[in-house]
Amino acid sequence: MSNEYVLRVKCPDRYGIVAKISSSLNKANLFILDSAHYGDPENKTFFMRAKLIYSKKVLKIDAFSKFFEKECKSLKMDWSIKPADYQPNTAIFVSKYGHCLQDLMYRVDSGILPMNVSCIISNHMDHKKIADWHEIPFFYVPVTKENKSQAEKKIRNIIKDLDIDLMILARYMQILSNKMCKDFYGKIINIHHSFLPSFKGAKPYHQAYAKGVKILGATAHYVSSQLDEGPIIDQSVERVDHAKTPRDLELIGRDLESITLARAVKYHIERRIFINNSKTVIFN
Amino acid sequence: MSNEYVLRVKCPDRYGIVAKISSSLNKANLFILDSAHYGDPENKTFFMRAKLIYSKKVLKIDAFSKFFEKECKSLKMDWSIKPADYQPNTAIFVSKYGHCLQDLMYRVDSGILPMNVSCIISNHMDHKKIADWHEIPFFYVPVTKENKSQAEKKIRNIIKDLDIDLMILARYMQILSNKMCKDFYGKIINIHHSFLPSFKGAKPYHQAYAKGVKILGATAHYVSSQLDEGPIIDQSVERVDHAKTPRDLELIGRDLESITLARAVKYHIERRIFINNSKTVIFN
Amino acid sequence: MSNEYVLRVKCPDRYGIVAKISSSLNKANLFILDSAHYGDPENKTFFMRAKLIYSKKVLKIDAFSKFFEKECKSLKMDWSIKPADYQPNTAIFVSKYGHCLQDLMYRVDSGILPMNVSCIISNHMDHKKIADWHEIPFFYVPVTKENKSQAEKKIRNIIKDLDIDLMILARYMQILSNKMCKDFYGKIINIHHSFLPSFKGAKPYHQAYAKGVKILGATAHYVSSQLDEGPIIDQSVERVDHAKTPRDLELIGRDLESITLARAVKYHIERRIFINNSKTVIFN
Amino acid sequence: MSNEYVLRVKCPDRYGIVAKISSSLNKANLFILDSAHYGDPENKTFFMRAKLIYSKKVLKIDAFSKFFEKECKSLKMDWSIKPADYQPNTAIFVSKYGHCLQDLMYRVDSGILPMNVSCIISNHMDHKKIADWHEIPFFYVPVTKENKSQAEKKIRNIIKDLDIDLMILARYMQILSNKMCKDFYGKIINIHHSFLPSFKGAKPYHQAYAKGVKILGATAHYVSSQLDEGPIIDQSVERVDHAKTPRDLELIGRDLESITLARAVKYHIERRIFINNSKTVIFN
Repeated sequence: MSNEYVLRVKCPDRYGIVAKISSSLNKANLFILDSAHYGDPENKTFFMRAKLIYSKKVLKIDAFSKFFEKECKSLKMDWSIKPADYQPNTAIFVSKYGHCLQDLMYRVDSGILPMNVSCIISNHMDHKKIADWHEIPFFYVPVTKENKSQAEKKIRNIIKDLDIDLMILARYMQILSNKMCKDFYGKIINIHHSFLPSFKGAKPYHQAYAKGVKILGATAHYVSSQLDEGPIIDQSVERVDHAKTPRDLELIGRDLESITLARAVKYHIERRIFINNSKTVIFN
Repeated sequence: MSNEYVLRVKCPDRYGIVAKISSSLNKANLFILDSAHYGDPENKTFFMRAKLIYSKKVLKIDAFSKFFEKECKSLKMDWSIKPADYQPNTAIFVSKYGHCLQDLMYRVDSGILPMNVSCIISNHMDHKKIADWHEIPFFYVPVTKENKSQAEKKIRNIIKDLDIDLMILARYMQILSNKMCKDFYGKIINIHHSFLPSFKGAKPYHQAYAKGVKILGATAHYVSSQLDEGPIIDQSVERVDHAKTPRDLELIGRDLESITLARAVKYHIERRIFINNSKTVIFN
Repeated sequence: MSNEYVLRVKCPDRYGIVAKISSSLNKANLFILDSAHYGDPENKTFFMRAKLIYSKKVLKIDAFSKFFEKECKSLKMDWSIKPADYQPNTAIFVSKYGHCLQDLMYRVDSGILPMNVSCIISNHMDHKKIADWHEIPFFYVPVTKENKSQAEKKIRNIIKDLDIDLMILARYMQILSNKMCKDFYGKIINIHHSFLPSFKGAKPYHQAYAKGVKILGATAHYVSSQLDEGPIIDQSVERVDHAKTPRDLELIGRDLESITLARAVKYHIERRIFINNSKTVIFN
Repeated sequence: MSNEYVLRVKCPDRYGIVAKISSSLNKANLFILDSAHYGDPENKTFFMRAKLIYSKKVLKIDAFSKFFEKECKSLKMDWSIKPADYQPNTAIFVSKYGHCLQDLMYRVDSGILPMNVSCIISNHMDHKKIADWHEIPFFYVPVTKENKSQAEKKIRNIIKDLDIDLMILARYMQILSNKMCKDFYGKIINIHHSFLPSFKGAKPYHQAYAKGVKILGATAHYVSSQLDEGPIIDQSVERVDHAKTPRDLELIGRDLESITLARAVKYHIERRIFINNSKTVIFN
């Protein structure tokens, strides 16, 4: 069992926070191995992520929490601590395009993305065999205009039953309800196949083709109730030229999508991302 | 004197164009050194750029033109030929930010951008000394709400008097009239300091900051009467993170702007760009 | 059945080649849809790739070949023509790292890489299940110091029996004999996990780490008898910093390797690559 | 006058360093605005850079130094503190190629590179007029085989007289003596026009052309007595293809060189770089 932890802190910015936190940690025999912080000059908010090592045998999280709360009360922190090797329970959502799913699963299997894939949820049967191959539960939840709210209810039940921490929309072509977006804000990552804020909505590669852009992009972001408007986590780009057809752009885009989504998921499960209003702070 | 020429052809697409053109050229003792072509599958338009060498002493352009027109009449070509070392007369427009101007002038001086800078036009006096240093005429044309049309008239006179072929808006912060945009369509290159179509209009770096993008961009495009909507020539990007202030983004953006504009101008003066409706075809 | 073909020509450079070839093709009712050519100024060699369409019913390749040979005899061409949808028989070689294999197979399955994967050959059993899943013959050919030449003989037999056109070394950790490299020169693509010519040989990520490079790379190249020295096909890079461990570099490198190898293979099977002494000419 | 400081610390790694340093600073009314640290797992060395703000009127550096030394004695620190707006006295060395010099001077003038350019030193007269334009002393120090040691003596005198902190070799085509490299180790930045460790020595663009690389690079590094072997600060790359001549590569390379050198210099003057044996640690 590892003795390393990841601490996350968000609080109003002021002088002396680092000193206060680090000396409090020291008193608890927790030492900073690696840390990063950022004070947003606009909204005066302080963000910190630290990787800690406990120098004694076993850290009692509850006792430490009480102590740390008390010590740093004046900072008015919103904070959390988890073992560094903590793996979130994840549900991967997919529709007909399987490249992001395949890519994520390969990374999970080879230890690059340390997460527990609890299930794959899809509105199509196409990728059941991938789920079977990886021995992961597959839930077929077809979505139509008529059954939309029932389908979402079914999804909510799965999320609850399997104690899901993170939902990854790996080219899932259904729009979640506003309520769902709000209830799980910060826990749903989507890959949008364009360089947002350009080309929101449907068929972004066709939009990019029509516009004649010379660089193609993909954007991973947290899902908010505004379509394709949630806080951006990561973006990638690739140079293209006039001779590329919409089909070419789509193929180039697939690599961008897979890599960008995988990177965003990695940041999330390593707990490197803070949502800062409509933006993200990422310590990488 | 060089015996090399650049031929440009645009015509309705059909079978056998390359054969027809290349054999016609051969008959005229003009041989293809380098060529590129593209048939747009959507609008069935064919584009070709060829670098030619004349195997005899001196090419009589007029005689060749008559011959070539007649030979290829069936192709219904829109075409032109110019010596490969042809240098357009250029006017560079600038306001307060001088980085693009400086960068262009350095490239001109060191032979990277083979063009004849006929004048620098500005609504401010700030960069007169750069013009003086390079011994280039400087025209101070202040623009106010009231004198806008007179100022443009002044500019039109300069363009006419100096026989200007190409206008480069090197961070020129004035919007040209629709009429001007139309009259000189395809002859005015602008650098927009964002990754279009994102962040049109004013203060794109502030827009990018507010949106929290993870990649910053710049776009060089031909000016059309729609603000920041003309055909895109080139784009560049650079990765940024949450800690970058609007000022940081601006500084990073400057390099993107200089390089992107220089590249677009190079393509233009090497006659590599065709406008294809709202897009560009670039043979590079 | 498609009526499109890819023509490849390599010949001594001189004036009028494009005209000669294109008019000869026209006579045979073959028309250029797309073409690219390059004359190397150093060794005076001309390279051309053209996508052609046959305007009649069925092209008789043999008859055309005789005609074309005769027509263009003076050009002293080394040439070939194949249907545009021709798919090479491919053998993928792999050792313990499966990411490139996985990535290639995904692209094959989803139609991005149009090739016929005839078999997977490995000196380990690890990836047999991937072969099984894709219903592709798997050949386990263990290699030791003692059996090296026998193992290669076995491989040669497989190559012959399955009529293999292309061998892809997808992180295959065995060095082929000089004889094998020569006999199949231009038919074996390797992915080297560094930015060649830096860091040849073993453990390039450890070499890169030791050197403290700020950019990591991967290189796909044709295999020659000089280790990691064959003609470069494609390279990719990614920015890294001091905090990356050799393990981090390896993980970042995996994505570079997969994408670079896939791109090189795509160029090859689309017949876009010419070997030009120690370099490649690629029409993409 | 600003009340901000940059603190740099290097010391043997152990638990509790951040807590010790930050609480010691707090006692001295210095608060961390921004900080970064890194512990090299190989050589157990800890590096830290912190931007501090002094909450009282005027910081007495000497008194603080004594206090801080005593407080943190157990850490065995190698450390320094300077005002955040400290500008090093810089000598820019140049030969015939002026693009890096021009680029640096533009950035200095426009406030992007906050440094005091004390002089320009060259073995040619070509760029004296740039020095004159910027009103900076220009020293013409021709170098021949015969006068090499005298020339270096002259340079040393200038460095001493003008109290130079930083020497920038902006395409300076002379090799400094081993003794000079050692005496000023960590104070001389060179731009090498290739992606090191590839293509050391002379004519790297010709080497890259001969090798047929698909990506071109530039490397900024500290000068050591081993030619082109000093710790790498920054690298940049750009994609190229077979059609690029050595001259094309050179032109593309110029932009890479200018930008890479400017970025390295910026890191240095913001005191973000630590030399860590043969590598660099950069907090950016």
